[in-house]
Amino acid sequence: MSYSKIDTYLQTHLDESIAELCQLVAQPSVGAQNWGMEECASLVAGMLQKRGFSTEILPTGGAPVVFGERKGRNTAKTLLFYCHYDVQPAEPLDLWETPPFEPSLRDGKLYGRGVSDDKSHITSRLFAVDALLDADGELPCNVKFIIEGEEETGSLHLPKFITANKEKLAADACIWEFGGVDHREIPMQYLGLRGICYVQLSVETAAIDVHSGLGGSIFPNAAWRLVWALNTLKGQDEKIRIPGWYDDIVPPTARDRALFDLQPDAAPEYKKMYGVKEFLKGLTGGTDLYMTEVFEPTCTICGLTSGYQGAGSKTVLPAKASAKVDFRIVPGQTIEKCLTLLRQHLDAEGFSDIQMEFLGGGPAAKTNPDDPFIKLVVDTAEEVFESKMELVPMVGGSGPNYPFVHELNLPVATAGLGYPDTRAHAPNENIRLDLYVKHARHMARVLVEFSK
Amino acid sequence: MSYSKIDTYLQTHLDESIAELCQLVAQPSVGAQNWGMEECASLVAGMLQKRGFSTEILPTGGAPVVFGERKGRNTAKTLLFYCHYDVQPAEPLDLWETPPFEPSLRDGKLYGRGVSDDKSHITSRLFAVDALLDADGELPCNVKFIIEGEEETGSLHLPKFITANKEKLAADACIWEFGGVDHREIPMQYLGLRGICYVQLSVETAAIDVHSGLGGSIFPNAAWRLVWALNTLKGQDEKIRIPGWYDDIVPPTARDRALFDLQPDAAPEYKKMYGVKEFLKGLTGGTDLYMTEVFEPTCTICGLTSGYQGAGSKTVLPAKASAKVDFRIVPGQTIEKCLTLLRQHLDAEGFSDIQMEFLGGGPAAKTNPDDPFIKLVVDTAEEVFESKMELVPMVGGSGPNYPFVHELNLPVATAGLGYPDTRAHAPNENIRLDLYVKHARHMARVLVEFSK
Repeated sequence: MSYSKIDTYLQTHLDESIAELCQLVAQPSVGAQNWGMEECASLVAGMLQKRGFSTEILPTGGAPVVFGERKGRNTAKTLLFYCHYDVQPAEPLDLWETPPFEPSLRDGKLYGRGVSDDKSHITSRLFAVDALLDADGELPCNVKFIIEGEEETGSLHLPKFITANKEKLAADACIWEFGGVDHREIPMQYLGLRGICYVQLSVETAAIDVHSGLGGSIFPNAAWRLVWALNTLKGQDEKIRIPGWYDDIVPPTARDRALFDLQPDAAPEYKKMYGVKEFLKGLTGGTDLYMTEVFEPTCTICGLTSGYQGAGSKTVLPAKASAKVDFRIVPGQTIEKCLTLLRQHLDAEGFSDIQMEFLGGGPAAKTNPDDPFIKLVVDTAEEVFESKMELVPMVGGSGPNYPFVHELNLPVATAGLGYPDTRAHAPNENIRLDLYVKHARHMARVLVEFSK
Repeated sequence: MSYSKIDTYLQTHLDESIAELCQLVAQPSVGAQNWGMEECASLVAGMLQKRGFSTEILPTGGAPVVFGERKGRNTAKTLLFYCHYDVQPAEPLDLWETPPFEPSLRDGKLYGRGVSDDKSHITSRLFAVDALLDADGELPCNVKFIIEGEEETGSLHLPKFITANKEKLAADACIWEFGGVDHREIPMQYLGLRGICYVQLSVETAAIDVHSGLGGSIFPNAAWRLVWALNTLKGQDEKIRIPGWYDDIVPPTARDRALFDLQPDAAPEYKKMYGVKEFLKGLTGGTDLYMTEVFEPTCTICGLTSGYQGAGSKTVLPAKASAKVDFRIVPGQTIEKCLTLLRQHLDAEGFSDIQMEFLGGGPAAKTNPDDPFIKLVVDTAEEVFESKMELVPMVGGSGPNYPFVHELNLPVATAGLGYPDTRAHAPNENIRLDLYVKHARHMARVLVEFSK
């Protein structure tokens, strides 16, 4: 197999692949708003079929999973790609320079909601498949795609789907949905993902809003109930106050810390990128910043809503209030126990009136940095990116890698085309076209080397 | 002066007055949204001019004041009517049975935003003027109207306007913007109003929202900063925790308490009306419920906003958060001191990052229950309402009565056409037409007796 033929194909057919990506981005698929999910799943399935994959759109109880499979020359080796076709909500819309679902190409970048997270990963991997088929008429090994539609809303139904479809999904290794280069342009290998337990807390204290002049002294106020309840969850020291929350945590290893020791200080980049003046807990950077970022459980208020939120003043005592709360969890913690502890805590603190709804999540999982598949992905990256891929033991973000690691028993490697200003989950999400081609080149090499 | 002639006029010309009211309600005048203020002021001035009042639309620095004056037979006596043409925001719109700015008549009630608070009080008083002019060709005494446009947003500019226009506004007594009957159909005389200090608290922790997986452990979160800051303002015991907040309070008198002792228990009505199961602080009803309702300072969260508030989940760490907070204040407390204490408290608690914006308010004030003008208003009400008007020393709501009581030195009497289900500040605000006519009859009698 000649990589130069493959690389030439990828350079000369880029416009076609980007056109396909634009088509995919133009199809909204906002899971949180249940917008366009079926349509997007069909579109993705059609893209797989076009490459000769046998495809299925499989029900999960939520948004369907798109599954595709194509045999290769070496039928004894199977590589599984995990991607997702759902995207984050595009709000706040007024901060987008061009409309989020009208992909826009400017200065070598393509902008649009979901263009980075995760639609470009779908099309760039299909682009690698195209190049391999063009070069050899066949794929070097068996390839499977599992492309889900609930990643951005916590992959609520994926773990059960995987347990129920272990045969179908059987493979020898997995390439994860994301990856990319850091601000030094060095490709990064992220070996683990924090877990997440996302809940909505809400409270209703009256049938209707009350004039605050009447009710202020004598009627319960939903906004106050919510504020007081939230305040019991985490103190200004950033410690989560829910009894037992830290009990089952498996602490990071010396190897984890050593891998972070090799990383350059992230502090200047973070401050510049997000306009943050200081980090929490007196952190200034270095390994401690990394270790805190990824190995500590969090309790993040993602949203608050109650009463009057318009301009000026309105003297109303709100009957309803709610908060979206994102708990990141670390190895050892489980969703079931976290939900139980949270409910017990709220009740014990006198907040049995606070309703709790689980909106999705799953536990944390890590792949062994010394797995041979990790070495393969790292080695193949070097030629493409012209620098050595570096290992990161864990990232602070979440994804459903737990069932891949612990149910399918796969080494899970990250590889992708992200970069620090990709703005996933934020307005003006974008990808760089140069990295799009590099990722396709990398994936073609992974498939070839893996098949040997 | 024959009251029967006046009453006949008011019964036979009701449709014309309601048509005028509908025209006024159809003109939005939402102060908080700066919507339609100039247009509404012009409309109100035109209505005064039609009755031969000399009128002025006077700048205040905010929404203008409409002033009108017409001399009467007894030029030695002047009655001042205080009303407002601004209304509360109509949100939440989906809870209205008919659109808020399309007045709708059903079952003897007129529905619309501002129909009760306060536009019907303007037109029903003009209706009384019409009846008096019809009966006698002249008014029995001098009549002045001050109709402001910032009552619902805290009457920010009215106190200074009054101080600057003491000559123009000089009078012997004042009829306040509101009043009405309670659930027993008994007309009530509200002698005082709590003060209000309305602020917006807001905080910004980053330039842009951050992915919560990255930022959760290491970046400050605006929503958390706000929750923690709010939590320091008031505890679950409902005590305001700002040092010095209660220091200057002039406690209610034995007479205040004795007046409430005469009132029936409000508890059953409140529970039914608002769907509230329990009152705060273990209150069950009776005089204690009243005393707490009106003579205690409050700290009410009227609104909370931060981050993602749509359906489902979004994993974002909000860069901005804000709350609308309504402090009701009682006799002895001043706006200046409250704002100073609040800022000092936030700073002392480590929340100098919380920005504070004063959105309006003024101190509390009461009229002496034994003032002869109060007796006149009470006595004239009895014939119209066929029951004795009862005295309430103070209400929990607020209004700018302080400069009327303490700058213009007027006894301020309340009289109006409100009733318990009038839904001021809430969806489906409405008035009863029978009370509309009764209020006009009452006002005609007040003017006649006052002129003697």
